[in-house]
This record gives sequence, C-alpha cells and structure tokens, in this order.
Amino acid sequence: MRVLILGGDGYLGWPTAMSLAAKGHDVYVIDNYLRRNIAQQTSSEALIPTPNLNDRAEIFSSLTNLNIEVEIGDVADYRVLSNTVAKVKPEVVIHYAEQPSAPYSMMGFAEAAQTFNNNLSATFNLIWALMEHAPDCHMVKLGTMGEYGTPNIDIEEGWLDIEHKGRKDKFLYPRAAGSLYHTTKVLDTDLLWFYVRTYGLRVTDLMQGPVYGLSTEESDQDERLLPNFHYDDIFGTAVNRFLVQAVAGVPLTVYGKGGQVRGYLNLRDTLQCVELAMETPAAKGELRILNQFTETFSVNKLADSVQRVGNQLGLNVQVQSIDNPRKELEDHYYNPAHSGLMELGLKPHYMTDDVVAKMLEQVIKYKDQIDPRKIMPRVRWKQ
Amino acid sequence: MRVLILGGDGYLGWPTAMSLAAKGHDVYVIDNYLRRNIAQQTSSEALIPTPNLNDRAEIFSSLTNLNIEVEIGDVADYRVLSNTVAKVKPEVVIHYAEQPSAPYSMMGFAEAAQTFNNNLSATFNLIWALMEHAPDCHMVKLGTMGEYGTPNIDIEEGWLDIEHKGRKDKFLYPRAAGSLYHTTKVLDTDLLWFYVRTYGLRVTDLMQGPVYGLSTEESDQDERLLPNFHYDDIFGTAVNRFLVQAVAGVPLTVYGKGGQVRGYLNLRDTLQCVELAMETPAAKGELRILNQFTETFSVNKLADSVQRVGNQLGLNVQVQSIDNPRKELEDHYYNPAHSGLMELGLKPHYMTDDVVAKMLEQVIKYKDQIDPRKIMPRVRWKQ
Repeated sequence: MRVLILGGDGYLGWPTAMSLAAKGHDVYVIDNYLRRNIAQQTSSEALIPTPNLNDRAEIFSSLTNLNIEVEIGDVADYRVLSNTVAKVKPEVVIHYAEQPSAPYSMMGFAEAAQTFNNNLSATFNLIWALMEHAPDCHMVKLGTMGEYGTPNIDIEEGWLDIEHKGRKDKFLYPRAAGSLYHTTKVLDTDLLWFYVRTYGLRVTDLMQGPVYGLSTEESDQDERLLPNFHYDDIFGTAVNRFLVQAVAGVPLTVYGKGGQVRGYLNLRDTLQCVELAMETPAAKGELRILNQFTETFSVNKLADSVQRVGNQLGLNVQVQSIDNPRKELEDHYYNPAHSGLMELGLKPHYMTDDVVAKMLEQVIKYKDQIDPRKIMPRVRWKQ
Repeated sequence: MRVLILGGDGYLGWPTAMSLAAKGHDVYVIDNYLRRNIAQQTSSEALIPTPNLNDRAEIFSSLTNLNIEVEIGDVADYRVLSNTVAKVKPEVVIHYAEQPSAPYSMMGFAEAAQTFNNNLSATFNLIWALMEHAPDCHMVKLGTMGEYGTPNIDIEEGWLDIEHKGRKDKFLYPRAAGSLYHTTKVLDTDLLWFYVRTYGLRVTDLMQGPVYGLSTEESDQDERLLPNFHYDDIFGTAVNRFLVQAVAGVPLTVYGKGGQVRGYLNLRDTLQCVELAMETPAAKGELRILNQFTETFSVNKLADSVQRVGNQLGLNVQVQSIDNPRKELEDHYYNPAHSGLMELGLKPHYMTDDVVAKMLEQVIKYKDQIDPRKIMPRVRWKQ
C-alpha cells in the first residue's frame, strides 16, 4: 500500500515507517521536527541521540535496500500537506503529527497555543487534504486513552449506548481529559466525527495508552535506528522515568499516591495495531474507534516491578512518593474495554519481568548520558 | 458592572450593549467586522443597512447620554484581546465573537478554516486573557442548541447522569452537531470544560436556539439602532427567510419535509437571559450550562404561522418544500429541557400571531430593499 506517515520522526512514527517499509509498503514520511525543537528549548533531549530523519532513512536504506521517502515540512500549513497528499495519493495516512507532551501543553500561554494550533490544524488540514485529493484514503489517527479520563463507569471502545428516561441512542463516549494536550485529542475526535458522518470519510481512531519499549525488530540492526527515548519530565513517560531513575541510582518518583491506573502497551504492539488497522480499513462514513493497550496497572505496581527487577540486576532501587504536579485522581475506578484489536488479531507482548530487565539493560548501556536534572517535574498543573 | 462584549457589532452583541448600558452598566465592546466582511463577500448584506459600530455608539449616546466604549479589533489575535482585558478589567465578559453562519462554514476549505480558526482562537484567547488579567471575571459564553443535534433521547441542560453496567457518573451531555459552525461550539464547550475544572474559571455557557425579532426597547428610539436583519441563505434564519418571502410574494421555502424541530426565542428574551446569567454568576470552577429558548416548533409549524398571519395582513403567502441543502433529520424526536433560565426569572415572549404580525409589518417597511437573489440556498452540505 502507499502509506503516508505524518510525524514520521517521532517515537512511534519512525519505528512505524521502518516496520511498514520492511513489510513491503511504499512509505512516505513527513515531519517538521517540532518535538526535536521543543526538546532543545526545554532541555529535554532524548537519552540516545538520533540522526535526523533524512539520515535515518539513508542508514535504513543502506542496511535493507528499502526506501523511505522523507519530507521535512509542517502539516499544520495546509499548502504543505495538501501538496503532499496530492503527490503521494496515499491509500492510508497514519496521523501521528501532534505535539504529544501533556506537561509542555500546561507550561503557559505560548506552549498551550502552540499545542492547540499545531494539533487542531494538523487534523483539520488532513481532513480537507483527503477530501480534496484522496477521498477513499483510510485515515489511521492516533488518539489517546487519556481522552476518556478516569470516569466512574466502564470505558467502552469509543461509543456508548445510553438509555435515558426510557429512550435509547448511541453517542461518542463522553470524554474529559487531564491536560490540554489530551484535550486537543478530544477536540480532534469531535471534529473527525463531524466530517466522517457528513462527508463519508473513513477513519480509524486509535485510543492509545502509554507506550513503552526501547527497540523494534528493525532498530535492532543498528543503534542509529533506535526510537527516541525520552526520560525527561516533558516527553518522558512514567515507565521511562522509572527505568532511568533505577539505573541512575535516584529514587523512582511516584506522583502522589500512585494509584493512577493506565492501559499500557509495548512499542512492538503499537506497530501490530497500526498494521491491523490498515489491513481492515474503516468503511466510508465510519469512525471506528479502538482502545489500544494490552494491560492495565497502577503507577505503584509499575514502580514495584522496576524496583524488583532492578534489584535482581544488582541496582539498588528506591521508591519515593512526591507531590503530584498534575491534577488527576490518584485512586480511582478504571475498567476500559479493549477487545477490538484483539479480535483483529493482536498478539500482545506484556510487560513481564523479562521485558523490564531487557529495558533496564538497554538503559544501562547509556548510563553515562543520563542527566538527572531532566527527571524531576518542572511543570505544575495548579496555578 | 464592568462588562466587556466580544462581537459587539452582531445581531445579539449590539442590542446587548445598548440594553446593558441602559441598565447602568459600564459597557465596552470589541468587534472585527468579520460578519460585515463575510456578508459583503457573499452578497449577503442585511435588509436594513446599519451604521458602523462607532457611529451606532455615537447615535445611542446622543439619544441617551449613555456611553458605550468601542474598539475595532480582532479577538482571535491574542495580543489584542489580552490588552483589552488588561485595560477593561471586566467583571463579566459576554462572548459572542464567533462566525455564526452554518452554511458559510460549509462552503469550502477557506470558509471552513476561517470559521474554525476564528471561533476556536477567540475562545482559547479569552480563556487565557481571563486567567492572566481577570481570573475572577464571569464568562458568559454563547453556545448553541445545535451542539446537541437531534438525539433520540431527551436533551438535558448541558450534563447527563449516566448509569452503565451498575455504576454511575455525570458527564457533559454528548454532542453531535449538524455543521462545522455548530461543531466549533462543541469544541468550545470541551475546551472550556477542561480549563474551568483545571484552573477554576467561572463560565456560563448558554445553549441558545434560533433567535428572532427585529427590534428591542432601545432600538425603538431610532431606526439607525436596529439590529442587523439577515434574510439571506448565509446569515438568515428560517424565521427571517419566511418573513421576507411572505412580504416579497415568494413562496416560503421549507427545506425537505419541514419536520425539523428547534427551540426558538425572542431577541428580547436573549437580552433577559444574558442579564439573568450576569446577575447570578457561575461559581469558581463551575461550567454552568443553560438551554436558552422558550418554545419548540417545527419548520412546518413556523411556515403555517407566517402564512396564516401574512394572509391576515393581506399578503398572499404560499409555502413550497424544496430539496434540503443540509444534512439533517427532517422528522425526529426532540425534547430539550429548559427550566434553568425560567428558574432564574426569565419571562418569555412567545411567538404569538401578534408578534409575527409586528415582524411582518416591520419587514413591509423595507419591502423595496428585498433582493430575492439572496434567499435561495447556495451552499449544499452533500458534496
């Protein structure tokens, strides 16, 4: 298939590009280096320096003889995206092109405005570029489980049948996210649903949980192909922060009570999920929503796991609760459905002790590059 | 109170400004003439030419000795709005500053992008300007009943208690609007709810139905103070279109089956509602949502009413169904709650035959200025 990947330089974009190219697809990627720029501006550089996107594609090509076409451009500019879609005529677009940091989106006006404008414009422009140049193209959009927040009822996959005063209807599952970044994805979903039902677009919206994993099959060939690994407070997840803290001999910083439960998945499973979505496109006029994670656990359970495995590897891992910089429930009900991707054929890689050990061993290789100043939260939700 | 009105040149903004000034409030209005510009660009000028906003304020002042401060500026530009809020230090902001035409928002990419960027930026900027310069200010935001669409269950006032698999929670009422314009207001609501619950803003979001009425107490003093009366397919409502068609001797154009039911209100009641909302501000951290209309009826019933009253006035009024340019249900369940504003003290003016007769008589005065080319739909939802 002809595949266009928006945000092809990202933690997910680049591994997706390599994986799909390896499977024989024609892959075209576009990225404006927004994450790289923000990382520099906020002193949040990744642990392992990665070559730029053109260089990565060249390295990949020299190893595999497979071509990934690269464009450096801003999809928030309609002329850029429209030209690219007209030229590539994709059968699938995978839309990763959003500013993904919740803390960055909560820093102040400038960062909030940049997140808001970038994320909404990227989605708005993609809708219109497809309507103009590729109306049958299947859009695979990355949403987030964070759109739902932590409601007191079961989270279904995107939609909810509601019975009210003896009458029934089906609605988008009500959303209430915990950061501006997550809220931009709520707005994306509302916007997509309007255009999908009005003009018959085909969209799969993947509500993804936090992804972990430092490598994929393709990146195993050459460390210059590794995904970006962020452990900082801006782009780093709790998983990455704990791995780095364990290796650096810094106590694992649990935000507040640590009862925050989320649905996690392995980077290799993200690649599977996106491919499964591509293979069975949404119908015209269908907004198919799938919850994309393989298991749920709390921050405390995650910290326990990193501590246990770290100590087995001879590290001396401590855990410490710190004041929560975010505004979120620290002890809550959480029961999200996630059968859709399993039914499509997803074979999960769970976060076993073995997987945690392999991640720790990979971080240990780069121990000297850890900058402890990057780890502690610098952005607070409460003003 | 110190009141700042965004979109003070509009059909609602200008009457609100006069009404609040007459009640002794300090009124400051800002507008960028977006509606006037779009009206010219699309040949959709109002029936009754209105002086510009500075001239209107001068005329009002010369008649009443009351001052309305005017700024011509674009609130979608953060520097402009931020400076204005810092200077005015409002106790209430009334936010009407959105591109309000559903058909315009559905014309093509440029019009959709303008609507999307203007409406979302105005709301985003207002949130931030208040957080920076007037965190205790009460925002009265105009939403629309169109945010809800036409669900098969009762429409509640903004929120819905949901019981699902034996557990309960309360959510924003799920929304599914019928145009991009209406969808921008859905996105506004999502955005407001995020910032209200995270930073303790006070917001009243008024879900308003179509408003009708050609005059208010203040405009009765001088016809140069009349509200903008649009009967064209871009800014005109079904009510205005039918009034003008009845007077012009053109059949009333019912879109499709005419079973579309909406909640309507008189312009004089909009003024009451906004004032009632001002008098009892939302609490800090509260997004208060009120459904703002006084009665519901179908397009067919509206056409019948204009026909009956028109014929009584000696007009020869015909009704004709035409192909529906919109994508909407033409026969549907509709039972929206609207007790909140009644409980605050709203005294409704219903659309009696007498009220319809007065509106027809006012249109008859300007009969010679009717341009029949403006009436028929030029924008189709289906591509």
